[in-house]
Amino acid sequence: MNIAILGYGVVGSGVAQLLTENGASYAQRSTQPAMQLKHILDKRSFPGDEHETIITSEFGVILNDPSVGIVAECMGGATFAYDCVLACLQAGKSVVTSNKELVAAKGYELMQAAKANNANFLFEASVAGGIPVIRPLSQCLAANHICEVAGILNGTTNFILTRMIEDGTAFADALAQAQELGYAEADPTADVEGHDACRKLCILATLAYGKHVYPEQVHTEGITKITAEDVEYAAAFKHNIKLLGRAQQLDDGRISLVVAPMLVPRSHMIAHVKDVYNAVLIRGDAVGDVMFHGRGAGSMPTASAVVADIIDCAKHCERRRVFDWLPNDPAFVAPANEECVRLYVRASGDAALPSAETIAQSNGEVVFITSRGKYGETIAKLAAFDVKTVLRVAEFEAC
Amino acid sequence: MNIAILGYGVVGSGVAQLLTENGASYAQRSTQPAMQLKHILDKRSFPGDEHETIITSEFGVILNDPSVGIVAECMGGATFAYDCVLACLQAGKSVVTSNKELVAAKGYELMQAAKANNANFLFEASVAGGIPVIRPLSQCLAANHICEVAGILNGTTNFILTRMIEDGTAFADALAQAQELGYAEADPTADVEGHDACRKLCILATLAYGKHVYPEQVHTEGITKITAEDVEYAAAFKHNIKLLGRAQQLDDGRISLVVAPMLVPRSHMIAHVKDVYNAVLIRGDAVGDVMFHGRGAGSMPTASAVVADIIDCAKHCERRRVFDWLPNDPAFVAPANEECVRLYVRASGDAALPSAETIAQSNGEVVFITSRGKYGETIAKLAAFDVKTVLRVAEFEAC
Repeated sequence: MNIAILGYGVVGSGVAQLLTENGASYAQRSTQPAMQLKHILDKRSFPGDEHETIITSEFGVILNDPSVGIVAECMGGATFAYDCVLACLQAGKSVVTSNKELVAAKGYELMQAAKANNANFLFEASVAGGIPVIRPLSQCLAANHICEVAGILNGTTNFILTRMIEDGTAFADALAQAQELGYAEADPTADVEGHDACRKLCILATLAYGKHVYPEQVHTEGITKITAEDVEYAAAFKHNIKLLGRAQQLDDGRISLVVAPMLVPRSHMIAHVKDVYNAVLIRGDAVGDVMFHGRGAGSMPTASAVVADIIDCAKHCERRRVFDWLPNDPAFVAPANEECVRLYVRASGDAALPSAETIAQSNGEVVFITSRGKYGETIAKLAAFDVKTVLRVAEFEAC
Repeated sequence: MNIAILGYGVVGSGVAQLLTENGASYAQRSTQPAMQLKHILDKRSFPGDEHETIITSEFGVILNDPSVGIVAECMGGATFAYDCVLACLQAGKSVVTSNKELVAAKGYELMQAAKANNANFLFEASVAGGIPVIRPLSQCLAANHICEVAGILNGTTNFILTRMIEDGTAFADALAQAQELGYAEADPTADVEGHDACRKLCILATLAYGKHVYPEQVHTEGITKITAEDVEYAAAFKHNIKLLGRAQQLDDGRISLVVAPMLVPRSHMIAHVKDVYNAVLIRGDAVGDVMFHGRGAGSMPTASAVVADIIDCAKHCERRRVFDWLPNDPAFVAPANEECVRLYVRASGDAALPSAETIAQSNGEVVFITSRGKYGETIAKLAAFDVKTVLRVAEFEAC
């Protein structure tokens, strides 16, 4: 079975390395077919690289090579990557991808194309890097109604928040640290504004509830407005501020989705997920809470998931892995204002919202936790306040 | 697709309940076939039970019913259960089981029988209840060399140790509490002596390393000798005592396996797994550490895993899920004495082993942590001491 990789960047080079280093042992195992890395697509040239001779800048070389049965898309983006993936599927090649932007934007179309051409389209690496979560959600927990999926889905922001929590670092300094360490890009927008976490939440929610959810349908807030003061007040209240992506099914069957920094009680394990680690919590009606924890990004952890999908395709090249993936249904997503939640509020003055729990009051500021209510209604009640910060309080209830 | 359940106890009744309650929604999903619960095997009678009419005491009724394609074995034990499972596989029926004793003792034979008869033999529920771990290990992490598998694999002992750690309860009282709450059986031997955890470790090690490992090959210690004093000394040293099952691959390719109470550093998440929860840590050369956490026992969590396997069999009735599962190889398991480890020692007197780190000394007792060395050699050096407790210190190193 011949393999091609699209994109020789951080993830693609990890995939090439893993196939080269561990490939012999995959083949040794009786149930694994031999796999050969045949082409790598990249516009750049890599003189002296061990895979130099198989790097091509022509996608057609891969598309038109009938000996290539599996293509690993590791380029990112949803335009050229979409064209390439669609063309491969239409040519009957199976595709695996680490590209969350592509899966969140075009998953339904690509799943349809895979089905029509009896090919596989797998994307374990698109959420939480190397942490197994797509298969566990779609197969191992298939007996459950999924009540909720919640997670720390972005390692960059979790690193920044960890520095703010553990060292009292200000947001800008923590971001600069993340950039120095290579955890954050020069333009950190997709991470710090929550877009990356949102794409992953869309993929998880689609698998949990069966209908494609688009990023535009999810209320998304980033962490740029979190201050060291908020981190401290949260700590005094025995909570850590974490950027959570959360999808919950309401009693009427609709789902409520949000990506936002939230106060997470320190009594819950998810409050203790540190640095660049990710964690995904899935609550099923039979299993209760299960949590998956590990490195959500990086070359080799992500490659681990890409190559697992490649092996799966190679082992089962004659048949297709089936996902429940129906088209988008706008009425299925509840408006963000209807989310039922308690809010953390920091405001000027000395008066809290009536019925709220005041947790601090000093220096002309009051900090309080509102009672549980619809997000939009509570926000409306806050109109009279000079609000500095509003954050959701994450509560994890019985299913 | 007709289903039969063997055994209408804690797990079997959960499976019946889940198939009945959630079965309609499985069928609604486009990719799921309709499933019908047709027989339940149990010697007892259940007058008034909602499934009373389909309960039979005759295994032959199930074996000889050609409309039954999938059998869920939820009886436990490795004798009658083995005969039934083997007969079903030989009749071409797929079997799923929650029975760790059976899989640990007879997994290889049953896998061969499944292969010979083109049937499936699945056992997700046999380790860590509802927490997905068998598929993640065998599929999602297939690209990795597995350096280590370690876990809190028994909820009963974790509950007892949690009570000892959090409340200072003595072992006997904590065990009595567990029995009152239904977490421990009247005869708690299999739990408190580590046998149950050992069976699960054997299954995990077999999947991680490809060769069947038998419980008799694993050095197994229980928690009955742990005292409140040890728990306190460990706490002062910033460790919690946990019953861990651990399999590690040595540089020479052999594997080292042990089930024993160990000191786990509080800086590691696994030290904070509480009550009846289980956690499994898997370390791969590419992915690094991933951890799975959730309820490792109980009727509905275990049923969640059994029914997931049933759905998997029903979706893919025409083909077989393949595991790498070779026969046992005695030379593959390193003797317990060769394990390289630091030891916690509590002894009478005031002198620690030379080169050890003394962590407490009072009331005629000395408590120390030895330097890292082969288990057998360190134990030999302790011959001159009046040793009260020896425990391994779990260190989690880079792969």
